[in-house]
Amino acid sequence: MLSGAFSFSLGATDGAARCGVISTPRGDIATPAFMPVGTAGTVKAMLPDHVRATGADIVLGNTYHLMLRPGAERVAALGGLHTFMNWPRPILTDSGGFQVMSLSKLRKLTEEGVSFQSHIDGSKHMLTPERSIEIQCLLGADIQMQLDECPAIPIAEDAARESMLLSARWAARSKAAFEETSAPGQALFGIVQGANYETLRRESLDKLMEIGFPGYAIGGLAVGEGRDEMFRVLDFTCPHMPREKPRYLMGVGKPADIVGAVARGVDMFDCVAPTRSGRHGQAWTRSGPVNIKNAQFADDPTPLDPASDCPASRDYSKAYLHHLFRAGEYLGPMLLTWHNLQYYQDLMAGLRTAIAAGSLADFIAGFKAETGETVV
Amino acid sequence: MLSGAFSFSLGATDGAARCGVISTPRGDIATPAFMPVGTAGTVKAMLPDHVRATGADIVLGNTYHLMLRPGAERVAALGGLHTFMNWPRPILTDSGGFQVMSLSKLRKLTEEGVSFQSHIDGSKHMLTPERSIEIQCLLGADIQMQLDECPAIPIAEDAARESMLLSARWAARSKAAFEETSAPGQALFGIVQGANYETLRRESLDKLMEIGFPGYAIGGLAVGEGRDEMFRVLDFTCPHMPREKPRYLMGVGKPADIVGAVARGVDMFDCVAPTRSGRHGQAWTRSGPVNIKNAQFADDPTPLDPASDCPASRDYSKAYLHHLFRAGEYLGPMLLTWHNLQYYQDLMAGLRTAIAAGSLADFIAGFKAETGETVV
Repeated sequence: MLSGAFSFSLGATDGAARCGVISTPRGDIATPAFMPVGTAGTVKAMLPDHVRATGADIVLGNTYHLMLRPGAERVAALGGLHTFMNWPRPILTDSGGFQVMSLSKLRKLTEEGVSFQSHIDGSKHMLTPERSIEIQCLLGADIQMQLDECPAIPIAEDAARESMLLSARWAARSKAAFEETSAPGQALFGIVQGANYETLRRESLDKLMEIGFPGYAIGGLAVGEGRDEMFRVLDFTCPHMPREKPRYLMGVGKPADIVGAVARGVDMFDCVAPTRSGRHGQAWTRSGPVNIKNAQFADDPTPLDPASDCPASRDYSKAYLHHLFRAGEYLGPMLLTWHNLQYYQDLMAGLRTAIAAGSLADFIAGFKAETGETVV
Repeated sequence: MLSGAFSFSLGATDGAARCGVISTPRGDIATPAFMPVGTAGTVKAMLPDHVRATGADIVLGNTYHLMLRPGAERVAALGGLHTFMNWPRPILTDSGGFQVMSLSKLRKLTEEGVSFQSHIDGSKHMLTPERSIEIQCLLGADIQMQLDECPAIPIAEDAARESMLLSARWAARSKAAFEETSAPGQALFGIVQGANYETLRRESLDKLMEIGFPGYAIGGLAVGEGRDEMFRVLDFTCPHMPREKPRYLMGVGKPADIVGAVARGVDMFDCVAPTRSGRHGQAWTRSGPVNIKNAQFADDPTPLDPASDCPASRDYSKAYLHHLFRAGEYLGPMLLTWHNLQYYQDLMAGLRTAIAAGSLADFIAGFKAETGETVV
């Protein structure tokens, strides 16, 4: 049996940026942390051992996908998501709400929840705050997320407030359900909404803190508002979030998004960018992104990163990777996904080291010099 | 620099079956050996470290695919195929002839060779015995194959003899070219043809032995003639092949084909079966093949082989593998290919152990009891 409680220990800080450790019965998570996305019970094109070898302490699973296929009750009968996907370490699951709204058909939002048809087979489902928690508990997620509504930006302030208030009511219902159903050591995070309105973000945060959660996410960003606007929202939201609780910026992002958000006090991230881009031939490198399918790499004998400990970054030439993508070989997405996840985890490790050393400004200056990206 | 010569050392025998070791400058190959197929410079959906971990001593590369993409001259400029694909151990390449005839467009066979158009981009090429050897030397293959013609069975005896005689003339030209171009320690094998005619197989073998090769392949089988007919051809061909040279049955086969051919004195095999089947959801197991996509596996918590040392066979439930294939995830083909290659290498290791112990008959009886397949 697993034992131990969920906790967050704040470590070194550098300006608004923080290091810390989230402890769970399944292991610790060093923050700032990047969580690779394992949508359907697998970080696409990756073996779990290699996900771990990149330095990932935790992966994310998608409730929407898993509830539809293979089904939460089935995963539970098979021993839970950790056993199912052969990943014994912490797993965070989202609530399913975001993907219901973006992927499903004939969805209908009410106070009760969201009814929808599966994008896979057209079957009808209802996702409520209570059902989302039930599913996340069946999966056995260590960190669970409240059901919320996540409107696009721009949105009128009235509509944004109405949506935020619905999410806040769902937060309370989620917590009540979680207290009924969850196992010891599991945690439920609330999600701050309010689009890009400072007053709404503050109001949302106040309501969530009144309910009380062991961690707070910032939702409703990275939905098309642009990096500067996202940073502006973080600038007026993060300072009010509880210092002693982890802060999770959902669905973010590209390396520059992450560096800028860490500088503003965010602790946790998830994004499909490294895995999705890897499958499509885009590699992140210390000098910025490269598209390995470009003809310029056909005869390039150098690896993506000769100094890396990661076999995918070190042991294969760009010419070979180029060939694999041109020939449509599985190994291309496998190696580029692995490389990108290593790049992301190295970035997080570099941020943690810099914060601990009080040298985040130097790190950010170096990041800008290498990539050309301005993040503060 | 690599050093050492190519040699074959015959070890224990059991009836017609033989154990042995092929030595090359890049490492030894324990026989009977199965060579995973790395068509386009990658054993599909496999990392080279994992190919090695299954027990493979050698992989096969396809001259036809590699000459068209990325191109033999390019691979040579990048350091050769071993460096290119990050496989430092022995590689055997075929001549390209078989796939020119099965895959290319507008092919035309003459005494000189085969002219054809690429199936990828329609570009025009000419493959002669000399060009095939040139390509195989550019790739840096440790074991190279003569260009041959490989007619389907059934074929009239006159036509089969004419084709076999062409292959024999090409064998002589291949050897002359190889002696000009090859590096120390590389070896060229001749290929016995003659369809399913005993007199033609004998005539082919005699002509090849007159030219003289360090190894002899049996070509033109597994082309639709059926297992019994293939075994009949082996029965009248193998006994006349030189005892002190390795014997390679090209393009074979399923496990029962291999067990039956080993019992008849064959030392080397290659086949796309384990990799191709793995990508399509078919797994070989000790109790025969299973299609993991079948609904019966949706809730099956057992792995494909709990006693295996191979992570793919041991650490993932059939239910999970079923889910991965249903969801179209990369990890499904990755794990099933790995499992199948492990199954094949375990089969070869079992055959070698049985031959060394003089207990091949027991091994074959056990194989029949487990799989229902009769092979002798």
